[in-house]
Amino acid sequence: MSVTVRQAAAALRDADDILILTHSRPDGDTTGCAGALCRGLRTLGKTAYVLPNPDLTPRYSFLIAPLAAPEGFTPGFVVSVDVADKHMLTDNAAPFIRKINLVIDHHRSNPLFGGLNLVRPEAGACCEIIYDILMALEVPLTLEIAESLYVGVSTDTGCFKFSNTTVHTHEVAAACLATGLDSGELNRMLFEVKRWPRLQMEQIVIETMEFYHDRKIAVALLHRADLDRTGATVDDLDSISGLPRTVEGVQVGLTLTENRDGSVRVSVRSTKEVDSSVICRRCGGGGHLRAGGASFPAGVGIEEAKRRVLAVTEETFHESES
Amino acid sequence: MSVTVRQAAAALRDADDILILTHSRPDGDTTGCAGALCRGLRTLGKTAYVLPNPDLTPRYSFLIAPLAAPEGFTPGFVVSVDVADKHMLTDNAAPFIRKINLVIDHHRSNPLFGGLNLVRPEAGACCEIIYDILMALEVPLTLEIAESLYVGVSTDTGCFKFSNTTVHTHEVAAACLATGLDSGELNRMLFEVKRWPRLQMEQIVIETMEFYHDRKIAVALLHRADLDRTGATVDDLDSISGLPRTVEGVQVGLTLTENRDGSVRVSVRSTKEVDSSVICRRCGGGGHLRAGGASFPAGVGIEEAKRRVLAVTEETFHESES
Repeated sequence: MSVTVRQAAAALRDADDILILTHSRPDGDTTGCAGALCRGLRTLGKTAYVLPNPDLTPRYSFLIAPLAAPEGFTPGFVVSVDVADKHMLTDNAAPFIRKINLVIDHHRSNPLFGGLNLVRPEAGACCEIIYDILMALEVPLTLEIAESLYVGVSTDTGCFKFSNTTVHTHEVAAACLATGLDSGELNRMLFEVKRWPRLQMEQIVIETMEFYHDRKIAVALLHRADLDRTGATVDDLDSISGLPRTVEGVQVGLTLTENRDGSVRVSVRSTKEVDSSVICRRCGGGGHLRAGGASFPAGVGIEEAKRRVLAVTEETFHESES
Repeated sequence: MSVTVRQAAAALRDADDILILTHSRPDGDTTGCAGALCRGLRTLGKTAYVLPNPDLTPRYSFLIAPLAAPEGFTPGFVVSVDVADKHMLTDNAAPFIRKINLVIDHHRSNPLFGGLNLVRPEAGACCEIIYDILMALEVPLTLEIAESLYVGVSTDTGCFKFSNTTVHTHEVAAACLATGLDSGELNRMLFEVKRWPRLQMEQIVIETMEFYHDRKIAVALLHRADLDRTGATVDDLDSISGLPRTVEGVQVGLTLTENRDGSVRVSVRSTKEVDSSVICRRCGGGGHLRAGGASFPAGVGIEEAKRRVLAVTEETFHESES
């Protein structure tokens, strides 16, 4: 059953012993949602906890680690935040998977797996919906709650840079800053600081970048040897596939990564002139208008994978130009 | 004489044949202010132009180029926007320099060089003040006006990332997006796209970066040969001195650039643990808490300059640790 913000707030007002679930490989939005909702419910005098997330990284642990549910806590009401589907929950959420009372999310694909479901795909970040619920519950915005909400809205919108940023995203950010939050210091930690292996991989991407089709196509190759030498982790590679598209004039950026098992992952990023999903589908993958991916099995090799995806991309260009 | 937003709006309402002045080496804020104010005044039926800025780059020309004052235009009222002082005006503003009726600015150091002066240092961008004036004048926010204002607020705050971002910055951004503005596409152009020489210089900076003092100090050297080889311009080097400080754990980032005349420019960037201005002063320069600079004359050489600034930085560390 789909519900409004007011109905979701009413359900929470009537509930107690609330357990909040986040998604696996937790990001700033799911942890921000959980941190803000849990703290907000506590100011209303309720018992509320966040289920410990085994994938939690140091980056976001300050938001939810202090709110961890104790061993053996028996919830009276279970809420998931920013979780697109049941299979996105962590393994330790298994005991609660059939008893989720309320789903709060902003993924269009959400199959409404809760008893009550508040899903608003137009929200840039799920934290915007949490903000609306807290306002409906008349929870005063403390500095700590504002910090959680701000991390969610800023990280899910690339610090207000991406197209998913809305009027409401900025309204929520304004409300957070009104509490006295130092967003500059927070953003430095979230967006500016990079691990040295990540910067070394950026250096390699720029150094080895190749251009094709009148410099409208840029190709970057991430070889296994480079990944091993720099010690770059999956986290370090996050968003690095956006780098080739940042070059002035480039309309399609292709990033090929050698996986440990010998398979090759292709990430496609395009500007508004080209549909990434067409390129990806023709390589056996899928995706959106501006971003998508595909994989080549072990045995193909990174050079042959490059040859194939480049041929498909050139073909797509020729079709649109003819 | 200092005035309020209401008084500045009243002066503009009484004026006509208005000429708007921008500062030399124009950025997104001064051009955004001029574009928004000029278009806003025109919707009120006034004749308004922007004095052509000889330093205007392609990046911001769409904001003010179509509003250029025709040769021989005689203004009845002159306004400067985002101009910190008279000497920041372009040379072609000389005929108007003693007749500036209204100064609208957000630089704390502004000596109030106009007849009327609206200077609000707490504004992250001067465009926030222009927004307030347009609202006081009851100008409807068109898509074009919103575009100008948005460019100003986003570029002056690092896309809402820096500490100068305020509640009002986000409020103005929200109002701009409410007109239907595609901020994502605009931000891609403003913040994501980089010239290839710039990316090559980033690659060189990362490749040659050196670490000292338990990796708390990072040093980057920009040799003249690299600048010549990549074709990087002054614009391309803009903000590249922030790169060493982005490395996790680094507290002081030092960037040394070989100038064409043989002198060496040092840029110092620090985190909250270290005062950049102390390091810069000891090298004969100056600056703020987190950012500053100094210069070494021709003859010293980049290696000797590095040795000296590194010695001063180490000394500063030892003092704070003892």
